[in-house]
Amino acid sequence: MTVRKAVYPGSFDPITNGHIDIIERACKSFDEVTVAVLVNRGKTPVFSAEERAALIRESLKDIPNARVDCFSGLLVDYMKANDIRVAIRGLRAVSDLEYEFQLAHTNRLLYPEMETVFLMPNVNYVYLSSSTVREVASHGGEIAGCIPACVAKALRKKFQ
Amino acid sequence: MTVRKAVYPGSFDPITNGHIDIIERACKSFDEVTVAVLVNRGKTPVFSAEERAALIRESLKDIPNARVDCFSGLLVDYMKANDIRVAIRGLRAVSDLEYEFQLAHTNRLLYPEMETVFLMPNVNYVYLSSSTVREVASHGGEIAGCIPACVAKALRKKFQ
Amino acid sequence: MTVRKAVYPGSFDPITNGHIDIIERACKSFDEVTVAVLVNRGKTPVFSAEERAALIRESLKDIPNARVDCFSGLLVDYMKANDIRVAIRGLRAVSDLEYEFQLAHTNRLLYPEMETVFLMPNVNYVYLSSSTVREVASHGGEIAGCIPACVAKALRKKFQ
Amino acid sequence: MTVRKAVYPGSFDPITNGHIDIIERACKSFDEVTVAVLVNRGKTPVFSAEERAALIRESLKDIPNARVDCFSGLLVDYMKANDIRVAIRGLRAVSDLEYEFQLAHTNRLLYPEMETVFLMPNVNYVYLSSSTVREVASHGGEIAGCIPACVAKALRKKFQ
Amino acid sequence: MTVRKAVYPGSFDPITNGHIDIIERACKSFDEVTVAVLVNRGKTPVFSAEERAALIRESLKDIPNARVDCFSGLLVDYMKANDIRVAIRGLRAVSDLEYEFQLAHTNRLLYPEMETVFLMPNVNYVYLSSSTVREVASHGGEIAGCIPACVAKALRKKFQ
Amino acid sequence: MTVRKAVYPGSFDPITNGHIDIIERACKSFDEVTVAVLVNRGKTPVFSAEERAALIRESLKDIPNARVDCFSGLLVDYMKANDIRVAIRGLRAVSDLEYEFQLAHTNRLLYPEMETVFLMPNVNYVYLSSSTVREVASHGGEIAGCIPACVAKALRKKFQ
Repeated sequence: MTVRKAVYPGSFDPITNGHIDIIERACKSFDEVTVAVLVNRGKTPVFSAEERAALIRESLKDIPNARVDCFSGLLVDYMKANDIRVAIRGLRAVSDLEYEFQLAHTNRLLYPEMETVFLMPNVNYVYLSSSTVREVASHGGEIAGCIPACVAKALRKKFQ
Repeated sequence: MTVRKAVYPGSFDPITNGHIDIIERACKSFDEVTVAVLVNRGKTPVFSAEERAALIRESLKDIPNARVDCFSGLLVDYMKANDIRVAIRGLRAVSDLEYEFQLAHTNRLLYPEMETVFLMPNVNYVYLSSSTVREVASHGGEIAGCIPACVAKALRKKFQ
Repeated sequence: MTVRKAVYPGSFDPITNGHIDIIERACKSFDEVTVAVLVNRGKTPVFSAEERAALIRESLKDIPNARVDCFSGLLVDYMKANDIRVAIRGLRAVSDLEYEFQLAHTNRLLYPEMETVFLMPNVNYVYLSSSTVREVASHGGEIAGCIPACVAKALRKKFQ
Repeated sequence: MTVRKAVYPGSFDPITNGHIDIIERACKSFDEVTVAVLVNRGKTPVFSAEERAALIRESLKDIPNARVDCFSGLLVDYMKANDIRVAIRGLRAVSDLEYEFQLAHTNRLLYPEMETVFLMPNVNYVYLSSSTVREVASHGGEIAGCIPACVAKALRKKFQ
Repeated sequence: MTVRKAVYPGSFDPITNGHIDIIERACKSFDEVTVAVLVNRGKTPVFSAEERAALIRESLKDIPNARVDCFSGLLVDYMKANDIRVAIRGLRAVSDLEYEFQLAHTNRLLYPEMETVFLMPNVNYVYLSSSTVREVASHGGEIAGCIPACVAKALRKKFQ
Repeated sequence: MTVRKAVYPGSFDPITNGHIDIIERACKSFDEVTVAVLVNRGKTPVFSAEERAALIRESLKDIPNARVDCFSGLLVDYMKANDIRVAIRGLRAVSDLEYEFQLAHTNRLLYPEMETVFLMPNVNYVYLSSSTVREVASHGGEIAGCIPACVAKALRKKFQ
């Protein structure tokens, strides 16, 4: 039997408990899940790609089959280069759906052998997003139970 | 390594090429996919559960890791009894999403070890449903490229 | 130049001012608009198809290029038989859209020469539907400004 | 100062913890909240209106400013008769919204002095509905943490 | 009885008749409604916070229980500082809903004693937004019946 | 009979096969369709308005009743100046709908004689957008079957 690999791509600026919930679910169905941090030219993130990857590694240290990597350019090129055929995406809401379907369809046209697998997060994370976490932190607030301790610490340091 | 099993539950009254597209995608990520026909008391289907299962078997005869079964009652009870932890669902549209999330969340409460995995069909099937197929067939019409040949034949016989 | 014909199909049980608004808009862009009342087996309407057609005729008597007809079966068969290639549909809300797109796509597969044209009603009718009108009338109520006088009179007679 | 009254109308077949969450929120903003059980002709509920009202009374016995009543006909007629000008509705999802807006707009046309106030339930109840509770109970299942104890007992008795 | 206070937060760049409609509705259910203008760092508004507050004051001069204030930072911090426990939000459309629910849920996590109350504007304002008003005004246009006279005058002056 | 004219406004940065599909459909129902390229101050397009218009002309050279023009400012002013009363818009998805309705309603207030006509593209283009085409091209990718050959060539030149 072959190793079943999947990639979970995103900006993760920063990783939230909602992302971790999706990663834990993906790690039950796949042998190896690579969390791939998008190095997005043109946007100015709160954390650099390296900082984001370090926070993800710290947050996932108890999940043995999760890996962390960075990539730039098209996801399908990263997947081809790493021989990964499954992309994981979390679906929270209706407004996510149409963007995600557009993305998944485009990726399918660019790389027909790939498949996008959508997972539903725990209901507690259905309204959680990285942008909300950043916005609250930038005003000195903190949303209880929404981010790992290492992320909370990094945000306090960044916005103090 | 354990065998990765998944169930794809539904009414399949009748199976369409959209369902088959989802089954083919699921069969690439899982070792064994059981298409489980819901025996729905209270509704009067066009085809009996046995007829629906026979049409599915005929349609999937070239996919070695797809099985067909019938079930009644709660999906989670069927999954527990058959030691299956993953349910496959196809997502076509926004109106699907909220019903599917409600279903997936309820199933998660009833059976926390299970996971619902959502797949996106080929764009050609995004507006296709069994009820449309039935409606058109009941007026003597036939939608080209939407159903397997055996289903087209069975519908013509049923509505002639 | 050829006569540009369009059909506006529906149940019209009963016709509302929202339907009339769409018909008036369609009659500006097309030379002849046929309002086609669906004779729906299986459903029990408040008004028979003949009553519905009569109420529509009365409501549209000042629009010279609107015609009224009844049909059963598939819309595309009616359109082929009457050499009409454009179907008009009113779009009010997001929940309409997916049903309408499914319908329009199915019709396109059955009759590739046809086109579905969507119009937006006046904002005052964006929350108006025949089922709301029926529900309110069945309890002796009447929604001001939502239905033609002849429909209001017919509803009072039906539910008294 | 006048007493601020509100009505929370619904079928409540049966009441769920999601309904109770909305009632508790409403009871903080209004002096008196009447939970009004719709006696719906035409539908066959699992519990009679009297049974539903009794289960609600039992569930709300610790909320002093909540009352329970039954009504038939139009909500606006009930509100006029009881001198209530605010209707409370819970909003869970996008598919709720359009139906609720259609309802609220119709009620506003019928009774311009009234106002509909929408509240958001706790995130845990965002996928919960009475129909899901009934469906699961009819197959002998029970969704933990979703219904009051008295409702769970009544459902077991009804479906045993 | 205590004074029931509510806050209606927003950018109001500029205030429209749709906002005023919501404020009038809120002022019927609450004893004191504070319209709180967000001083949004990072964005470049057409009107400064002071200009926006002055236009709101002028527009609301006939509503005795409406107040106007400015705030920066998190809404929940403003509410705690002013001992306000209810936030008012207008809901126009499906796309509003998910953003509003995300906001309301985040605020609830940050300040559990608060409640968000959603109101539906008059149907005439269901497609109206400040950004549309700004866009039209920037090209020398004016949408009849959508903004108070003082706002129309200020916009003409700003874009002449 | 008068010449029936329509305008199809947009950014077209660049034109896709989805746009062309809508133009072909519009050209069957109207005698003359003007594709109107918006010269959008404030945004930095990949192609200048002149380049975009040239690519459209090249792509539509076989459709005799399609014209190409550029405009700035409000669409309704362009329509009044050119004596056009119908605007064509393509509808792909739910998220399009609310923006389009807001736009159509605003235009209707500014120019009551105009009508917006919505058309549904071929299902193959339902997930296609100019921004996806630009994003993929900027990374050296190309989505098969989504853009005319002249656009593909221009994109390769622009991003090489």
